Amino acid sequence: MMEGNVANESGKPLLLAPGPVPIPEFVAAALSQPVIHHRTAAFQRLYAQLQAGLRYLFQTQQATGVMIGSGTYGVETGMYSLFQPGDRVVVVDNGKFSARWVEYAEVLQLDLLHHRLEWGQVPETARLVELAKEAVGVVITHCETSTGALTDLEEIALALREAAPDILILVDGITSVGALPFYFDAWGIDAVVVASQKALMNPAGLIAWAISERAQAHLRPTRPGDYANWYNYWQAGQQHSFPYTPPVQMLYGLQAALNYVAELTLPSLWNQVHRSSRRFKQGLKDLGATVRSQSPSDSLTAFHWEGKDMQALRKHLLQAGYELAGGQGPWKGDILRMSHMGTSASEALVEEVLSALRRFSPPTPAAAPE
Amino acid sequence: MMEGNVANESGKPLLLAPGPVPIPEFVAAALSQPVIHHRTAAFQRLYAQLQAGLRYLFQTQQATGVMIGSGTYGVETGMYSLFQPGDRVVVVDNGKFSARWVEYAEVLQLDLLHHRLEWGQVPETARLVELAKEAVGVVITHCETSTGALTDLEEIALALREAAPDILILVDGITSVGALPFYFDAWGIDAVVVASQKALMNPAGLIAWAISERAQAHLRPTRPGDYANWYNYWQAGQQHSFPYTPPVQMLYGLQAALNYVAELTLPSLWNQVHRSSRRFKQGLKDLGATVRSQSPSDSLTAFHWEGKDMQALRKHLLQAGYELAGGQGPWKGDILRMSHMGTSASEALVEEVLSALRRFSPPTPAAAPE
Repeated sequence: MMEGNVANESGKPLLLAPGPVPIPEFVAAALSQPVIHHRTAAFQRLYAQLQAGLRYLFQTQQATGVMIGSGTYGVETGMYSLFQPGDRVVVVDNGKFSARWVEYAEVLQLDLLHHRLEWGQVPETARLVELAKEAVGVVITHCETSTGALTDLEEIALALREAAPDILILVDGITSVGALPFYFDAWGIDAVVVASQKALMNPAGLIAWAISERAQAHLRPTRPGDYANWYNYWQAGQQHSFPYTPPVQMLYGLQAALNYVAELTLPSLWNQVHRSSRRFKQGLKDLGATVRSQSPSDSLTAFHWEGKDMQALRKHLLQAGYELAGGQGPWKGDILRMSHMGTSASEALVEEVLSALRRFSPPTPAAAPE
Repeated sequence: MMEGNVANESGKPLLLAPGPVPIPEFVAAALSQPVIHHRTAAFQRLYAQLQAGLRYLFQTQQATGVMIGSGTYGVETGMYSLFQPGDRVVVVDNGKFSARWVEYAEVLQLDLLHHRLEWGQVPETARLVELAKEAVGVVITHCETSTGALTDLEEIALALREAAPDILILVDGITSVGALPFYFDAWGIDAVVVASQKALMNPAGLIAWAISERAQAHLRPTRPGDYANWYNYWQAGQQHSFPYTPPVQMLYGLQAALNYVAELTLPSLWNQVHRSSRRFKQGLKDLGATVRSQSPSDSLTAFHWEGKDMQALRKHLLQAGYELAGGQGPWKGDILRMSHMGTSASEALVEEVLSALRRFSPPTPAAAPE
């Protein structure tokens, strides 16, 4: 674990953006293992292990799979695979990434119900249930990485299922799964996507998903030359196989991360993330800074510090050895974002960053109102 | 270089399939370098270097870019980005992979001119020019990996350009670029795709392309949520940036490979591949085996050995430490395929494999007719 200031050891700042996160040694070692051919029993054993590791990660007994791509591709291909042009689909839009699913719904020519919220807000359950009544599906971003806002997915999913039993619930779990409690089966989720560069501590470039039986029935059989269609991966996955040339070394990296998750166990991992987040958010409050968003996620902290030049603060932290991410879109220049995912999720590291923040300027005595 | 029998050293067979190829040490080391954040000047420097390395690789002064995905995704997104539903497009189909571009043309609802050839055949220039007369574009697979057949791309591209000056020539260069002579600008190619796990000796998962000014004019401006559209990568690439979260470690691996290509130089690399291929093909002939396909490529050798059980031969080679690929589709069980790409491209290794072939059975005195 990165308990000490890794920055000072390596001479380079420690990347603490909410993805990509630094890759730990055991993932780096896995990435450089020799390739195996993908049309072999050895590959099928590897893939079957990944599928099992993903079932644990997503807390599901249903089908899981892996595809090559960044998180954006994962959610887009989920939408492409489950919905047809003209399908009425509700898309929640409360930040930079969830706005992409709106744009892609337009590219797909869905009958879009665009549920637009202010940046930092999360959807209200009753409103979403009302909107979703006539819809085929709903696309929800569990944690919006641009704002740090966490949607109450459990409450929403259970309410949606009660109001519209057949609706397909597609979840962007990119900055949540592996870091925050997530229960695919118990919450009745139909499809979820996670990306490798977040809680799974791998290079970007892989996405993984789970898909319910309800959603499987919506997949269209298609041609091998339809790379974006989950159907092809789901079918091949039943034989623990991959329909295209798989990135074997990256699958080794994913396997190492899933083994780590299984050994540490999800409850311990979630608690590690939670404690780091809680300590950091409390420390910011003590300094007079404000944690942004209506319902702050534990997977990252987005904060503003009143009266401080946030750009100068970012530079100061960089010089101290910690690379936080800035804001995006309307929040550009206004906030900093710090990850609590992966091996960066430690209270000791949080104390280091808080200490560096204190050196930027003495604490403001009066705490800002939430 | 893998001059000795790496199989005997590591205890595992050496993978000699025509992709993925083993990754050399310098690529493995690059893959495990620490991640950098992608919205930084440091990333832009890395990406600018990659773009320059790709310009050399493709022999072009035009725009180059990288995307996440396997080779299939590269060609499909090229077709998606350059052609619109209803566009008349000629697709050459002479094996398993080129057949995918036919299928994808149907998914895209192009006005498809399906130029179907027997497995192992290559298109005839005059016939292709005739077909392409009224077309917006043509999709050609330079080397068909399933058969080892090499299309005379130079002759075809020059003839197409003369007959149809505005036609878009999209090339699948997956099993050719980096291994065989390829001249994007001099041949007047409009778009070419290469994948990381072949001559670039990296894990699968990255594709790279070049795009001509003529083709750039066909790109549709689109939304950020249209991950498959080359437009987004081309636009971001002008600032040496990547429109989504890039797989930074895999880009390091690609950089290491492009540096290797630049240092060794393309002519030396092509010659190394050629000499390995020539030696292997001659050795097979001496054994009485037959190299398949009308116009055998140097990047791989697909061969049949009359009177031998090819499955048993594959197992024999595996036990000797060499993992060749079998046949696909109609050629399943009928051929073996050996790569001459990457660091496997050495005459010494070819001698080892020939020697193992000789141990399977004494040479047949009478050489089979070609």
